[in-house]
Amino acid sequence: MPEFLTLQPPEQSFTLLLNNLPEFHPGIEVVPVVTALNRVTAEAINSPEDSPPFHRSTVDGYAVKAADSFGASDSLPAFFRLVGEVPMGAMPEFAVEPGEAALIHTGGALPEGTDAVVMLEHTQLLPPQDLEVYKAAGLHENVVRKGEDLKTGDLVFPAGIKLEPAQLGGLLALGIEKVKVYRQPRVAILSSGDEVVPPEVTPRPGQVRDINSYSLAALVTRYGGLPEVKGIVPDDPGILEGMLKQALTEADLVVITAGSSASTRDLTSEVINRCGKPGVMVHGINIKPGKPTIFAVCDGKPVVGLPGNPVSALVIARLFVSRLVSRLAGLNISLPSAGYQAVLTTNIASQAGREDWIPVTLRQGDGRLVADPIFYKSSLIFTLAGADGLAFIQADATGLNAGDQVFVLPL
Amino acid sequence: MPEFLTLQPPEQSFTLLLNNLPEFHPGIEVVPVVTALNRVTAEAINSPEDSPPFHRSTVDGYAVKAADSFGASDSLPAFFRLVGEVPMGAMPEFAVEPGEAALIHTGGALPEGTDAVVMLEHTQLLPPQDLEVYKAAGLHENVVRKGEDLKTGDLVFPAGIKLEPAQLGGLLALGIEKVKVYRQPRVAILSSGDEVVPPEVTPRPGQVRDINSYSLAALVTRYGGLPEVKGIVPDDPGILEGMLKQALTEADLVVITAGSSASTRDLTSEVINRCGKPGVMVHGINIKPGKPTIFAVCDGKPVVGLPGNPVSALVIARLFVSRLVSRLAGLNISLPSAGYQAVLTTNIASQAGREDWIPVTLRQGDGRLVADPIFYKSSLIFTLAGADGLAFIQADATGLNAGDQVFVLPL
Repeated sequence: MPEFLTLQPPEQSFTLLLNNLPEFHPGIEVVPVVTALNRVTAEAINSPEDSPPFHRSTVDGYAVKAADSFGASDSLPAFFRLVGEVPMGAMPEFAVEPGEAALIHTGGALPEGTDAVVMLEHTQLLPPQDLEVYKAAGLHENVVRKGEDLKTGDLVFPAGIKLEPAQLGGLLALGIEKVKVYRQPRVAILSSGDEVVPPEVTPRPGQVRDINSYSLAALVTRYGGLPEVKGIVPDDPGILEGMLKQALTEADLVVITAGSSASTRDLTSEVINRCGKPGVMVHGINIKPGKPTIFAVCDGKPVVGLPGNPVSALVIARLFVSRLVSRLAGLNISLPSAGYQAVLTTNIASQAGREDWIPVTLRQGDGRLVADPIFYKSSLIFTLAGADGLAFIQADATGLNAGDQVFVLPL
Repeated sequence: MPEFLTLQPPEQSFTLLLNNLPEFHPGIEVVPVVTALNRVTAEAINSPEDSPPFHRSTVDGYAVKAADSFGASDSLPAFFRLVGEVPMGAMPEFAVEPGEAALIHTGGALPEGTDAVVMLEHTQLLPPQDLEVYKAAGLHENVVRKGEDLKTGDLVFPAGIKLEPAQLGGLLALGIEKVKVYRQPRVAILSSGDEVVPPEVTPRPGQVRDINSYSLAALVTRYGGLPEVKGIVPDDPGILEGMLKQALTEADLVVITAGSSASTRDLTSEVINRCGKPGVMVHGINIKPGKPTIFAVCDGKPVVGLPGNPVSALVIARLFVSRLVSRLAGLNISLPSAGYQAVLTTNIASQAGREDWIPVTLRQGDGRLVADPIFYKSSLIFTLAGADGLAFIQADATGLNAGDQVFVLPL
């Protein structure tokens, strides 16, 4: 008879796993900034120059010395003499003396002698070159000063942040065309079960194709890892041990989808314990779906044993493997996942003490986002494939009612 | 003097743009399922087989005929004769007669003559082959029936859905190794301004490097488009017209970051009107940042004019270009963006009638997610590069107070 699992709280279990991992130093590589989307910075980046490199106007107007406009109002305008127009993309070749002004466009460089810009709408030009200003300009008003965004040497980004579109643009704006990033963690994926065959094989009666390896590979890719699908392991402890040890030498993280029966599940746990210390930290977490999850560390490398059934495997991978991959990718801070707030359409019961993640579809209803639960068996992958996300019921709740607000995690 | 803009409500403006686009039919290509993450299905996919292909057990236990267990209880067990064990990955070679049972593992195929599985924990084996069952099994209890997930010919996925990890696994599980997907839309990106130089050029005094083209390219990539950075256009209507017409022949969507001054902005709008009908639909939306946005359609192709300053350009791209790219990618339904609910730490004022999107950083505080607004000038890209998201203040609000819940859109 297989042993029954003693279930642990999911988040504490995951924290226990993280706390038992040594500090991980991913390798470093240099890549062109234009291909670095979603990569993680491997060193602090300091600005090689001032940004902007000169005092820039943020409006269309007239560059003046602010002090010359003090006290100007609709009834008592200040008078200036227009001495020129600032060309775009070049420094003005003239200086502006007290009482003088120069026409300037947004993005133009302030001429020497000026320290503010008066907006067009607060002026009137009396041709050929008399200018009335109806509003006083403060010092540096409508100006971004040289180095105001970044000064030479300022920290642009610390190590350990993910490069999003805005960051890529920022680096290129400073003339930084290459960036040191962490290598992506290698994630070995093993799928076990005597009944499982690869997708390209036509299953004989009693066999089923491997669902998990490729959904997991796609998920690992999405969170910044390099998946390596290692194939299907028969329910044989010797073979599993050999494949797991090999995977541990090659990869930074090993994910095994355990055989679905309790006996092969226990086999997975025993084999993990033979592959390194401290071995299995947690076997069984209080969550639905995903109860028979294994969190383990083998000689410094994390091993996650996922439940055999495909819905449970993918939910646990979404909740925990994603975060493990982000950590191994070198991300310093990872925010919780963005999600939806939606209104539940149906009552859902839940067992107190257990976290529930219910597949739902989302739709707009009455100007609000509403979530329709999908009732399913966890062995049916296509119910999950049709879901937009997972609605969360926290451990201390005994369910949610129709009309309740619910957090929905996108898949 | 440039004209002042008449500001339109942002969502209505975008809807107006969408409503003026003809139905778009992206091209179709066939790709291997294992490389199809994030692609969009171009045709409905029907199941080539029953899934699962046989009656499967969902537990470890004994396969029986349910009727034979009726009335069984702790005090009055039902008796069975154990006749064999179902091998994994093969059909049982024996049939089960009335009053008989077979040991079966999770995922095993039910032997002929059985229609339910009794869980191990509700049985006791009296060796060699007498089995006591303490709980009656319902018909098909602990069984997934042949075709219960999908029957041959059932719709697996409609056209127009994005292939996420679960969908890839599902397709492979059905032996579907190639999939018809829409071609990714081509998005031409033009950046205008006499002062702008490409990232690889060292700016002369008065010049600045192009920030927008590459942030926009990364954003287009993220939402499923193929960006084509067309380079920098000088503030010359003839040249801009030539480049825009060329871009419209090649791309499915053209994004122009307008010169930052009002005069070049108006120039952009005039040139767009010369490139096709109906031309500019909206010039100026009531949003901060991003007021001088242009939505246009030129002979059936959408053109978006983004404000010249980098923060505004990226915010408008995140809010609207992302959705336009998704639509051109063939996505049928697009959910609103997932986001965060956070507690604001500081009062923020907002003008009534105007939508505000305030860059914020997020952190955990007191077990809740809190949002710290970043106060910035919209010409400073690095303040945006340091933000985790944009906090939303709706048009009818005059601001938010410290302690208020706020929706934060990830960048």
